[in-house]
Amino acid sequence: MTAPVLRYDVTTNDWVLFAPSRARRPQPDAAHARPMDATSACPFCPGNEHLTPGEICRTTDTSETGWCVRVVPNKFPALEPGASPEQTELGPVFREMGGYGAHELVIESPHHERRLVDQSVEHIERVLRVLHTRFTALATDSRLRTIIVFKNHGEAAGTSLAHPHWQVIATPVVPRLLRIKHDVATEFFDRTGRCVYRVLLDEELAARSRVLAENEHYAAVLPYASALAFQMRILPRAHHASFGRVPVALLEPLADILKTVLAMFSAHLDDPAFNLTIDTAPLGDEDKLYFLWHIDVLPRLTTAAGFELGSGMPINPMLPEEATRLLLGATAHATAGEAAP
Amino acid sequence: MTAPVLRYDVTTNDWVLFAPSRARRPQPDAAHARPMDATSACPFCPGNEHLTPGEICRTTDTSETGWCVRVVPNKFPALEPGASPEQTELGPVFREMGGYGAHELVIESPHHERRLVDQSVEHIERVLRVLHTRFTALATDSRLRTIIVFKNHGEAAGTSLAHPHWQVIATPVVPRLLRIKHDVATEFFDRTGRCVYRVLLDEELAARSRVLAENEHYAAVLPYASALAFQMRILPRAHHASFGRVPVALLEPLADILKTVLAMFSAHLDDPAFNLTIDTAPLGDEDKLYFLWHIDVLPRLTTAAGFELGSGMPINPMLPEEATRLLLGATAHATAGEAAP
Repeated sequence: MTAPVLRYDVTTNDWVLFAPSRARRPQPDAAHARPMDATSACPFCPGNEHLTPGEICRTTDTSETGWCVRVVPNKFPALEPGASPEQTELGPVFREMGGYGAHELVIESPHHERRLVDQSVEHIERVLRVLHTRFTALATDSRLRTIIVFKNHGEAAGTSLAHPHWQVIATPVVPRLLRIKHDVATEFFDRTGRCVYRVLLDEELAARSRVLAENEHYAAVLPYASALAFQMRILPRAHHASFGRVPVALLEPLADILKTVLAMFSAHLDDPAFNLTIDTAPLGDEDKLYFLWHIDVLPRLTTAAGFELGSGMPINPMLPEEATRLLLGATAHATAGEAAP
Repeated sequence: MTAPVLRYDVTTNDWVLFAPSRARRPQPDAAHARPMDATSACPFCPGNEHLTPGEICRTTDTSETGWCVRVVPNKFPALEPGASPEQTELGPVFREMGGYGAHELVIESPHHERRLVDQSVEHIERVLRVLHTRFTALATDSRLRTIIVFKNHGEAAGTSLAHPHWQVIATPVVPRLLRIKHDVATEFFDRTGRCVYRVLLDEELAARSRVLAENEHYAAVLPYASALAFQMRILPRAHHASFGRVPVALLEPLADILKTVLAMFSAHLDDPAFNLTIDTAPLGDEDKLYFLWHIDVLPRLTTAAGFELGSGMPINPMLPEEATRLLLGATAHATAGEAAP
């Protein structure tokens, strides 16, 4: 059997996603091989469009490839629209449901070697608009509970295909970490009348020591209690619980601050592997006040070991205010034409 | 500043451990270098005992090294007995406490190259007895809340020193994943009157399809809702909530089943990197009925990417019953003198 299935873990009240087809990906994670980099075989490169299953949409331009961003279904999906979201009880502690959902790939550009940080603000905005469109389209399906938008950059971040791309996964249940974040933010709002992310943004802007960049609509901070070294969060100044509710006019300044902070990472940390995620309220809560959508950039500079996996407590070797100093210093150096330390 | 500190994450109601001294370890995780393997420089090898800070204890034998297991404090500790467990409020959302606790290393044997699976059952039992002794000694400190015993094997599991060793970390707060497991098990017990791990053991033994090995006192299963491919759990048949309450007579059969299942991993999966953790009730709950201590072995065959990090939902590419078949088949082959597939 290869259809995805979700199984309930009765020791954590959590769902685990089993996706046997993921084992058939072109570059299994287990292998020590580098992600595919021969453009002739890359399914995301121009000329190889026939290697990806039925295109969902594209944005076009007048270049010779004919497209600048393409969206296709994942050939090795974690969740599938054909699966049934029915649950089955198998005794007192075993319960499963079909892996209903969606798993789409957003090919960032026709250029195999061009990283997100090297794209123009205009092109990054174009990518964000496509992600926003797919988010709002998937959000109309009432069988779905959350939509996770993310990007993996580099082998240490779990990338199996080098050609820059984003992924959109829509799930029929709320995954653990998101459920915790929603519950904690709900409790904070009920207790204080304020959105916890708004309070954090205000406090970080008042403290200043972990602020990496700002523009009129966003601030980028290295959170006070960062789980990872150089973890970075972009928070919007306008209140929207869901990425799907962000006015498209606010995507250009988002592209701008994203390029700015990725340039700092690239300059100081030598192009680190990272995961980027867009955190958002669950479907149905798009207009609530308790949550504020945000972007987290998670550099993969360390490997979680037995303590972190067994306890769930992260060990971070660097305080975020020190990481902020390093990133700001590096940018100053780069501006002055010096090499980053 | 280099003393460890815990910071509270108000978005998850969690503590994050900041340990700046971890960045000064001999082989930082960020480097792509292999773990130290020159025995002449290895601080855990015989003759280099002076390289480790004040020895806590050792077991002795008549060999020329004079010891068979040594316990020393970690030179780059995540938590320190000298830190104060006082909490400090820094405004409405920032709160921290000193990194009070313990971080000990248990050097498995004098042999740099000998893996745990290659040790005799007698020696594995000796290691378990030392871990048990350190667990019960640390458990007398009323400022501590949990003790996490774990072992990292291989670079992909976050090992920085190749010489086989275990670690014991005692924390002044209950880390997230353990708190979730304790809360869920408590709720299950209140609702049903039974320990959830006991029910899972009974159900796995009835289903048979995920049972890897058994002896009179333990069973090793690949759990129904495993988060990772080939994840393996050893559950005891006798009820004890805490590893610290296990009678020492039950450590020999534990050593026996541990060697058996690690041999299956080694034969079929080509010596995979793994983390091994001992999960136990929090200090103070050692005699409760809601929890059952157990061992988890977590092979590191895949890399968690943006979806898993952002959502907390694991994607497992292999069902545990298929993984069980593979491991049992490999053992049958090995017994018949054939190479593992």
